[in-house]
Amino acid sequence: MKFTIQRDQLMESVQDVMKAISSRTTIPILTGMKVEATEHGVKLTGSNSDISIESFIPIEQNGIVYVENIQPGSIVLQAKYFPDIVRKLPQQTVELEVDDHANVSVRSGSAEFHLNGQDAEEYPLLPQVQAEQSFELPIDLLKGLIRQTVFAVSTSETRPILTGVNMIVENGELQFVATDSHRLASRKIPMQENANNVSFQNVVIPGKSLTELNKILADSQETIEISVTENQILFRTQHLYFLSRLLDGNYPETSRLIPDQTKTMIQVDTKELLHSIDRAALLAKENRNSVVKLTTRTNNQIEISSNSPEVGKVEEEFQAESLEGEDLKISFSAKYMMDALKVMDTEKVNIQFTGAMRPFLIRPMDNDEILQLILPVRTY
Amino acid sequence: MKFTIQRDQLMESVQDVMKAISSRTTIPILTGMKVEATEHGVKLTGSNSDISIESFIPIEQNGIVYVENIQPGSIVLQAKYFPDIVRKLPQQTVELEVDDHANVSVRSGSAEFHLNGQDAEEYPLLPQVQAEQSFELPIDLLKGLIRQTVFAVSTSETRPILTGVNMIVENGELQFVATDSHRLASRKIPMQENANNVSFQNVVIPGKSLTELNKILADSQETIEISVTENQILFRTQHLYFLSRLLDGNYPETSRLIPDQTKTMIQVDTKELLHSIDRAALLAKENRNSVVKLTTRTNNQIEISSNSPEVGKVEEEFQAESLEGEDLKISFSAKYMMDALKVMDTEKVNIQFTGAMRPFLIRPMDNDEILQLILPVRTY
Repeated sequence: MKFTIQRDQLMESVQDVMKAISSRTTIPILTGMKVEATEHGVKLTGSNSDISIESFIPIEQNGIVYVENIQPGSIVLQAKYFPDIVRKLPQQTVELEVDDHANVSVRSGSAEFHLNGQDAEEYPLLPQVQAEQSFELPIDLLKGLIRQTVFAVSTSETRPILTGVNMIVENGELQFVATDSHRLASRKIPMQENANNVSFQNVVIPGKSLTELNKILADSQETIEISVTENQILFRTQHLYFLSRLLDGNYPETSRLIPDQTKTMIQVDTKELLHSIDRAALLAKENRNSVVKLTTRTNNQIEISSNSPEVGKVEEEFQAESLEGEDLKISFSAKYMMDALKVMDTEKVNIQFTGAMRPFLIRPMDNDEILQLILPVRTY
Repeated sequence: MKFTIQRDQLMESVQDVMKAISSRTTIPILTGMKVEATEHGVKLTGSNSDISIESFIPIEQNGIVYVENIQPGSIVLQAKYFPDIVRKLPQQTVELEVDDHANVSVRSGSAEFHLNGQDAEEYPLLPQVQAEQSFELPIDLLKGLIRQTVFAVSTSETRPILTGVNMIVENGELQFVATDSHRLASRKIPMQENANNVSFQNVVIPGKSLTELNKILADSQETIEISVTENQILFRTQHLYFLSRLLDGNYPETSRLIPDQTKTMIQVDTKELLHSIDRAALLAKENRNSVVKLTTRTNNQIEISSNSPEVGKVEEEFQAESLEGEDLKISFSAKYMMDALKVMDTEKVNIQFTGAMRPFLIRPMDNDEILQLILPVRTY
């Protein structure tokens, strides 16, 4: 195998597939990165027990040549060293050559690296996805869905199913839901027309897979194809192939958690509330999820406060846009509230309370696509 | 005590004195920050067993008012929370007020923090420096002296004296020397005229103190005053007072380590050599100080290489500006060599070798102020 490639393109692909490569794996060859050259370009592959990533560098794109002088072939490189080598090469052009004994030479300018490769035959084949259900969506929108829900997955393995995001397609709507049983994040969007025959309820994607996918995908209005099988999900763009296993088990029915009545409703400036809670949380660092208190006052004033006897206390009042219903005094995790407010893209939010002991809802001011639910904390 | 202060100035001073405050101290009150208001301004103090820092915010500077409405007094605040509080306050103006029971209120906009303070009477008094020897120097130059030597101090407590930088004033010259016994870094500059009566050989400043001082001092051509007593050193600028203890013991005589003959001398481009060694070191990550080899070739060519049997090898040749004397093959720590080259401010450097087993010297191309010495590594 032999080819000459542009370093920047190689670096980008290497960084993408590295997200699937772990040095802690029970299958030694998976600590490596597979490099495959064909007449169409160069494909890099990384894989672990949860996800597999393929990144393809075409010989040319938009008239710019990325790969030249290709002699087809494949090899597995030690992934521990390869990214640093590529980053530090002195020239923009990199030549990679493999001899019959899996000796790899990487040349750039006057620098020459000789690496011990491994036979690509020993690298496991990625499962072929026989897509049962498949639909498309703009990359931007997918990144939004991930960002607005994935933070709420559980980090504990007590109920493994809650470490994933539930993806639901039903009645022409796509919904992402995540909950760690103390809070819930959900976003629902209308499906595009081409997906009318798709429908499923119990697809649960590991939160970590979505976090990695979100890092790899660049903001773009191009589309990504999502294909679902019984135990795998494939995300595919023009040059990227991202395969994740799905979680086993039944995702709990979450819609019944949403309270259907409201006793107090406030509308506030998103950033003002966020910063105020951030400050109130400062003195409560000791508790893992520092607890703050929200109290309604007269004249649409809201008070945010916290008290930590050894250090001191914080109080802050600000003006809500509107404040309706019963008086309220409620305590909640500052972290959960900040997580929820940070992913609200609207300037103002609606918060609906049903008493101090019942979960409350945060929604954007002008649409119902996003819903964040938080359970209050009992304070005596 | 009461005053109103500009948040940015307060933040800057808080960050400076925080460098002397440790949460691990045997004297509990030293986990706090002393705040003192007088009619001239506000002084913050932090201290640990090695260094003490005072930062002063004057009531006004260059016509800009920093502090107003002062009622003199002092208090000790818990340093764990105060920096975050100041950073996150909503307005540019901050009001700090202390009542008779050491209750502190910090107000900014509608946010109000109530903190438990401690009586400032319990805060230890900083030692008064009776300056025996004192001189001045531009801040820029001091920062250069620190940066070019402090990296070479020992990190091991086997010989505590080597964890410091030896500051020598002699014959109208000021020199900083650091060595960990595997390498040595030195810079010597002519003293300014006002310091003719200053002279000492055995002042050893803890490396950590100098590193912190370097972080606090902003690049500037203003002068800093350095005063030395038997066991302390004081660095003083207009609004900063930085006191460090000195290390006990005799700093070894280092001048006899410098070889006085040369067998091979090369002149090379600093960055070219640095990057080449950086690449060669990549495959040798396993060894703590990855060892690389330098070999002289014909036609002024230098080869940098490394070999790590399990991973592979790297070779790179480049053109020296000049190459004189015996052929040479020498191995050394890539880290030490890179540390030394990084602080060379000249485009080209001279390297003088006295055989493969003897220390070698790196100097800037056109002056003798900076000298870096590195011991080679035996490879069989």
